[in-house]
Parts: sequence; structure tokens; C-alpha cells
Amino acid sequence: MSATLLAEEMGFYHEALKEAKKGLAEGGIPIGAVLVYEHKIIGRGHNRRIQKGSAILHGEMDAFENAGRLPAKIYQHCTLYTTLSPCAMCSGTSMLYNIPRIIIGENINFKGDEVLLASRGVQLIILQDQQTIQMMANFIKENPMLWNEDIGVYPST
Amino acid sequence: MSATLLAEEMGFYHEALKEAKKGLAEGGIPIGAVLVYEHKIIGRGHNRRIQKGSAILHGEMDAFENAGRLPAKIYQHCTLYTTLSPCAMCSGTSMLYNIPRIIIGENINFKGDEVLLASRGVQLIILQDQQTIQMMANFIKENPMLWNEDIGVYPST
Repeated sequence: MSATLLAEEMGFYHEALKEAKKGLAEGGIPIGAVLVYEHKIIGRGHNRRIQKGSAILHGEMDAFENAGRLPAKIYQHCTLYTTLSPCAMCSGTSMLYNIPRIIIGENINFKGDEVLLASRGVQLIILQDQQTIQMMANFIKENPMLWNEDIGVYPST
Repeated sequence: MSATLLAEEMGFYHEALKEAKKGLAEGGIPIGAVLVYEHKIIGRGHNRRIQKGSAILHGEMDAFENAGRLPAKIYQHCTLYTTLSPCAMCSGTSMLYNIPRIIIGENINFKGDEVLLASRGVQLIILQDQQTIQMMANFIKENPMLWNEDIGVYPST
């Protein structure tokens, strides 16, 4: 993992990774996220497409939802940690709430709307964490149709 | 309401408006949406911030969620009807799933990420429906802090 993160930040990233592994253990898509405010995790979650038959509970969305209703002034000082580059939905949600900083596990298996996020002034840090890359690559290889469904891609292969 | 919609489309818009009114009757934020595929409503919903303590269930998100898990090829032929111009989250979700067309009740009280959607090739039709405009204006006037929370605005006034 990149040495550019502080030890505390690496700890938060590992919590997002734990969420991804939890999702995998549940039979779900292994993507996890945590939302951090003032050095504390205030929301955590993982992709629940399979577990809840959900079209919107990507890992980041689940973390936002589990953080509950918050005023804008909180979000504007949060960092979002996610194991995978955020798709358009999760990028849009981060933009709605003006999340200023996103730590991303990897963007090798999927590159989301990073250019859009950066154009809105969001700071992005890409870790290219090998463990995360491998876990996601294995999942996609074994579940290509499910993965395509999750990212809105057609035809499924 | 604009005469540019077909009678069938006007009917679908009225269903979105019904959802908004249902939300208002529940004590919630009056924004509703329906997702239409092949002349049928496959998902409907309304903002549930208050009702479910949700940070992500905007009207459009609720409609996507209630439509359930769908393959990309379905979304790519859907029209989304929503009473209010879609925020960054709902715009991003529409982009994730490549929704090609969005019918919007009004963008007077709030203008979402229309420029972004248009830049991605999404067809937008803005109705400027007077009943919708008035309902939303009244709600915002009476609940400014709640409204600011829903659209991630600070300071709340």
C-alpha cells in the first residue's frame, strides 16, 4: 500500500477493505467503504446488490446511508475511503454532499468518474493496493455478468 | 404542463407527481419519480429522507431501488420521470445506468446537474409544471433547513 498515507489513514483504509471482505464472505460483491469525520468513522458499508437485491447500495452508498442524516457542514469535512474507484452514482453522491477528499483502493479493475470528481475540486488519492486489486480481479473473473450488472454494462459477457 | 409530451407521457409524469404528493402527505420532502420501460412503470418512489432517516433515498433513487436489480439493457431503454431537476447523486445514478431520457417537472426551485447530463448525451425535457413548482416552493419556504440538508447546502438558513 502507498506510503503516502498517514498511519491513521491506512487504518481507515483497512476498515474499508474489511467491509469489502465482509461483503465477499456474505456472497456479495467485494467493495467496501468508510466515511471519516474528525478522525472517526461515522459510516461504514459494503456493496449489497446481492444481499439486499439492491440497485443503489454500492459500498460507498451503503456507508453514506449508514452514516445517517447529516448536515452539509459535516460532509464538507469528511474523507471517503473506498476500495474501488467510485462509479458515476457514488461520484455524484460525493459531489452532492461536497466530500472534499476520497481515498481509493484501486482503479485497475474499474475506473469510475475520477475526471469529473477532480474537475469539481475533489482530492483523489489512488493507492493501487495489491490485495484489493487481486480480490476484485478474482471476483470479476468469476462473476462477469453480475459485475456488468453492477456497473450498468451491456452486453453482459 | 407542456404540450410537447404525449398523453401517455403526461400520464407517467402525473404518477411521479402523485409520488411527490404521497411523500408530502407522509410528512416528507415532496419529490417523486417513476422509471418507465416499454410503456410501463417498473419502479416508483419518493424522497424518504424524513420517513426512513435516509441520506440517499431521493425520489429518483427510491424509484431505482424499488425497480429492483435490472440488467443494463433494460435501463438503456428507460425514461426517468422526476418532479425536480436531478441532483448530482440522482444524475450520477442515471449516468451509471445509462438512462437515455429524463422528464423533469421543474428546475425553478432547484437546478441539478443538467449540464453534466446533457454533456453525456442524456435527453432532458423540462416541463416547468406550475403545480409542481408551487408545491416545492411552499415546502422549501416552510422547511429551509431540511431542504438545505437534502441538497447538501451549508450554511442552513
